[in-house]
Amino acid sequence: MARAIRIISFIELSLFLALSSWIFSAQKINPQTLREKVRHFREQHERAILDEYLDFLSLPNLASDRAGSQKNADFILSLLQRRGIRAKLLKTDDSPPVVYGELSGPPAAQTIVFYAHYDGQPVDAAQWASPPWKPVLRDKSLENGGQEISSTSLPEKIGSEWRIYARSASDDKAPILAMMAALDAIKESQIPLSANLKFFFEGEEEAGSLHLEETLKKHPDLLKSDIWILCDGPVHQTGRQLIYFGARGVCGLEITLYGPLRPLHSGHYGNWAPNPAVQLSHLLASMRDVNGRILIKGFYDDVLPLSETEMGALKEVPDVDQELRKELGLGWSEGKGKSLVEQIMLPALNIRGIQAGNVGEKAQNAIPTEAKASIDFRLVPNQTALRIKTLVEDHIRDQGYFIVYGTPDKETRLRHSLIAKLAWESGYPASRTSMGLPVSQALVRTIEEGLDSRLVKMPSTGGSVPMYLFKDILGAPAVILPVVNYDNNQHGANENVRVQNLWDAIEIFALLFGYSGYLW
Amino acid sequence: MARAIRIISFIELSLFLALSSWIFSAQKINPQTLREKVRHFREQHERAILDEYLDFLSLPNLASDRAGSQKNADFILSLLQRRGIRAKLLKTDDSPPVVYGELSGPPAAQTIVFYAHYDGQPVDAAQWASPPWKPVLRDKSLENGGQEISSTSLPEKIGSEWRIYARSASDDKAPILAMMAALDAIKESQIPLSANLKFFFEGEEEAGSLHLEETLKKHPDLLKSDIWILCDGPVHQTGRQLIYFGARGVCGLEITLYGPLRPLHSGHYGNWAPNPAVQLSHLLASMRDVNGRILIKGFYDDVLPLSETEMGALKEVPDVDQELRKELGLGWSEGKGKSLVEQIMLPALNIRGIQAGNVGEKAQNAIPTEAKASIDFRLVPNQTALRIKTLVEDHIRDQGYFIVYGTPDKETRLRHSLIAKLAWESGYPASRTSMGLPVSQALVRTIEEGLDSRLVKMPSTGGSVPMYLFKDILGAPAVILPVVNYDNNQHGANENVRVQNLWDAIEIFALLFGYSGYLW
Repeated sequence: MARAIRIISFIELSLFLALSSWIFSAQKINPQTLREKVRHFREQHERAILDEYLDFLSLPNLASDRAGSQKNADFILSLLQRRGIRAKLLKTDDSPPVVYGELSGPPAAQTIVFYAHYDGQPVDAAQWASPPWKPVLRDKSLENGGQEISSTSLPEKIGSEWRIYARSASDDKAPILAMMAALDAIKESQIPLSANLKFFFEGEEEAGSLHLEETLKKHPDLLKSDIWILCDGPVHQTGRQLIYFGARGVCGLEITLYGPLRPLHSGHYGNWAPNPAVQLSHLLASMRDVNGRILIKGFYDDVLPLSETEMGALKEVPDVDQELRKELGLGWSEGKGKSLVEQIMLPALNIRGIQAGNVGEKAQNAIPTEAKASIDFRLVPNQTALRIKTLVEDHIRDQGYFIVYGTPDKETRLRHSLIAKLAWESGYPASRTSMGLPVSQALVRTIEEGLDSRLVKMPSTGGSVPMYLFKDILGAPAVILPVVNYDNNQHGANENVRVQNLWDAIEIFALLFGYSGYLW
Repeated sequence: MARAIRIISFIELSLFLALSSWIFSAQKINPQTLREKVRHFREQHERAILDEYLDFLSLPNLASDRAGSQKNADFILSLLQRRGIRAKLLKTDDSPPVVYGELSGPPAAQTIVFYAHYDGQPVDAAQWASPPWKPVLRDKSLENGGQEISSTSLPEKIGSEWRIYARSASDDKAPILAMMAALDAIKESQIPLSANLKFFFEGEEEAGSLHLEETLKKHPDLLKSDIWILCDGPVHQTGRQLIYFGARGVCGLEITLYGPLRPLHSGHYGNWAPNPAVQLSHLLASMRDVNGRILIKGFYDDVLPLSETEMGALKEVPDVDQELRKELGLGWSEGKGKSLVEQIMLPALNIRGIQAGNVGEKAQNAIPTEAKASIDFRLVPNQTALRIKTLVEDHIRDQGYFIVYGTPDKETRLRHSLIAKLAWESGYPASRTSMGLPVSQALVRTIEEGLDSRLVKMPSTGGSVPMYLFKDILGAPAVILPVVNYDNNQHGANENVRVQNLWDAIEIFALLFGYSGYLW
C-alpha cells in the first residue's frame, strides 16, 4: 500500500509539474514573437515616438541648472504617469531630483531597477553645428555629410540611419525614451510584465552623482530589487549589443613637485637649482612603464583574477584592435601584444596631464618653480582606493620625497630636498557581478534569444561607474546595458543618436519587461 | 773696439729705456688718483647725470617698436656727439640701428670696443608699481619698502642707496649712461685717454641680436680692435665687481611625442592607447638625472677642461650657495655637493617646460594626444651645436623613436610606434677668453688697482652671449664686464638700478678709458 501510494503520488506530482509547466509556458511569450509585435508597434508610431523625444531633448539639462533640471524631472514624471506608473520625485537638498517609478509584475516576480540619467555634459555651443538644445534630424552623421531634415514636416516613417543631434540625445536620455516606447508597445500588444519594474532616473550623473549614495541610503525599501540595470554608454564598436558585468573603480591624484621659489635663469642657475620638471619625469617614469605596466610595488597584489567564464567571454569579444589603431593613428598599442579588452581588465595608471614652465613660443630659458602631474588610477576588484593610496605614497617616499598635502612653506622647503604635494580625489572601488548568477544568465538569455544573436559579454567596462554602491548599500547586483551607437560624440559637440539604435533599444527593453522575468 | 761699442750701446740703450719709462710713467696717472678725480666730478654733478639718465629712460625701447628704437638711437647719438665723439648709426634692413662712435687715444695705442644695448625686455605694465617708461626714484628697493621721491624736486646730492625704477634702468642703459659721465669726468679732470675707444650700442639684444653677425661682417675695419668689453648683466651677489672671460653657448630643442589622434577616455582605452606623457617622462628621465648629469652618450666628450688658472679663479669666487638656497627656498642643490660656480662651468640640460593634457581643475580622465618638452642645452668650449644635435638625436633614436621634423601624417604615425618630432632652435657655441692674455691681465689690473680690491674673475658666465662672434668674425677676444646691482629685477617688472652702482660704474669706465691702455 505504502508503495502504491508512493507510486500514485509520484504520478500525480509529475502530472502537476507538467501542467504547471504548460500553464507557465502559455504565459511566457516567445521572445521573437514579442520582438516582432513590438517592432510592428514601433513601425506604426515612429513619428509619435520621435515627437515625444524631440520635446524631451529641447529641455536644457545641465545638473547645475536647477530650474532646467526640475523641468526635465517634471517632464519624465509625466511620461511615467501617462503610462500608469506610480511615480514621484526623490529629492535630496537642492540637487536635481531623482525621478522614481514602479510597475508591478506578476505575483512573486523578481524586481528589476532600470537606471538612466537625464542630465547632460556641459556644452561649448560654439563648437556645435546646431544649438545643443534645439534637436536637429540629419539623414546621416555629420562626419559623413549628413543633411538636415526639417522636423516640422517629418514623414511617418523615419530613416533608420538618421541621426538626432542634441545634447543627451545619446547620453543619457535615449534609454528613458526607449523604455517609455517599450512600455507602450507591450501594453498595446497585450504582453504582460514578466517582472516588477522600477525606474530610477538620476539628474546629476555628469556632475559626479553627488547625492546618489545618500539617495540609496534614504530609500532602501523603495529601491529593493534583484538587479539594477544601468542603461548608459554606447554599444560595441561593431554595433553588437553589449553587456558589462562590472566597472573599474577610479582614484585621481595630482602631484606637485617644487623647484626654486621664483623662476631662475637657466644659464645662471641650470645644473644647480633643482629642476622640478626633471624630477617629475623621473618620478613618473618610476611609476609606470610605456607598456602600461605599473611599477609601484604591490600594485597588483590584491587584483582578483578573472574567472574561467570571464576569460572565455573576453575571448569571444570581437577583435577591433587593428581597426581602432588605424582610426586613431596608432602604430602600436600598449600591453606587449595584449588586446584592448584584456588591457582594460587590469588596473591602470593614466597620466592625464603634465605641466611645468612653458613650451612652444612661450618657452623661456628658465628653471620652472613647479611641475605638476595629474593622474587617474583605474582599479579592479579587490583593490581599494585606500590601499592604492598607501602603495603610491610608499612608492613616492621610496623615491626620496617628503610628502605634504598642502603647499609647503619656505621652512618646509628648506628642511627637505625633494617634496611632493599630493592631492587625492575621493575615489571608489571597482565592482563586478558574476556572470554565473541566475539573474546574469537570465539577462543574457533574454537578449540573445530575443535578438537571435550573441551578446558581447564583458566582465567589466574599462570606465568607472559607482556600481559598488548598489551592492554595498542595497545588496543588489548591477550590470550595465548600453543601447546607443558607438560614434555618438558623447560628452563632446554634436552629440547624436542613430535612429536604429533607438528602435533596437525599444525591442531590448520590451524583452526585459515582458520576458526576462520568466528565466530566473 | 767692437766690444767697447757694444758696451756703450748697451748703456745708451739702458738710458733710453729708463728715460722712456719715466716719460711714460709721467703720462700714466695713478689709478687711485684718477678714481678720486672722477668721484669728485661725479659728486659735483649727480643731479645733472641723473637728469640726463631719466630723459634716456623715458624713451620706450622695445626692439619691435621701430620708431621708439630710432628715438633711442638718436638720443644716444647726440649723447656721443655732445662729447666730441665721431658717431653714426649702423643700419641693417629695417632693424633698430647700432649706435657707433669712436675716440682716438695716444698714437699706437690699443683699441677697446665697449658694447652695450639700449633695447629692453617686453613689459607687462600691469605688474609694475609705476609705468615702465616713467622713471621713478625710490629711497630704497620696493622689496624693502622704498618710498617714491619726487623727481621734480631732486636735491643736488643723490642718496647712494636710492633706486631708479624703469625698464632698462639696469639692462642695459646703465653702462651707456655711466660711460658718458666717465667721459665728462676725465675730460673735466684733464686725464688723457690711454687707449682708442670705440662704442657699439645695439638696439635688439633682447630680441635675439638678429643682425649682430651681419653688422660685424659688414664693418670689419670700422670695428677692428684689441678687445671687446661687453657691458651687460649684474655684478656678483656679494656686490663685488666681476668680470667674465667667457659665456656658455646655447641650443634650444622642442620635443613632441604622439598619442592617439584624438583624446581618448582613459577608462575605455587606458593601458592600451599609448600615453605620450608617459613616454615623455621616460625619454626625459633617460636624458638627464636629477643631479644635473646629462646621460646622453658622449655629451661630455668634447668638453674643454678648465685650466689651472681658471680653476684657481673659481676657488676665489665668494661662496654664496647657502645663502642663495635659503633665498630660493631650496633644501638642496643639484651637483652632489658641487658649488654653483662649478656647476655652471659644465654643459647643462634644462627642461624649461613640459605640457600634455591638463592638470588641476581642467584635468580630464583622458589620454592626451601629444606631450611636449622644451629644453635648452648650455654648451661649453669645444662643444658645437651641430655635434650636440647629433648626440641628442642618436640618443632619442636609441630609445626607440623615429625622428621627424614636421608634424607626422597619419600614414607615418601608423608606420612607426614611437615618433618624436624635434624642433631645433639655431644655437651658438660657447666662448672663453684666456685669463692669461696680456689684455685680460691688463683689464684685471686696471680695475683691481683702481678699486683697490680683488675682482671676482669667472672663466665663464653660466648664461649665453654670442661672444664667439667677435672672435670668429673680427678675431678679437671679448670679456663681459657687468656693472649693475644683482637685485635689479632684470627682465621682470619693477626693473631698477641702485644709484651707487651707477657711481661705481662711472669710476670703472674712467679707469678703463684713462688707465688700462698703459698696462698692455
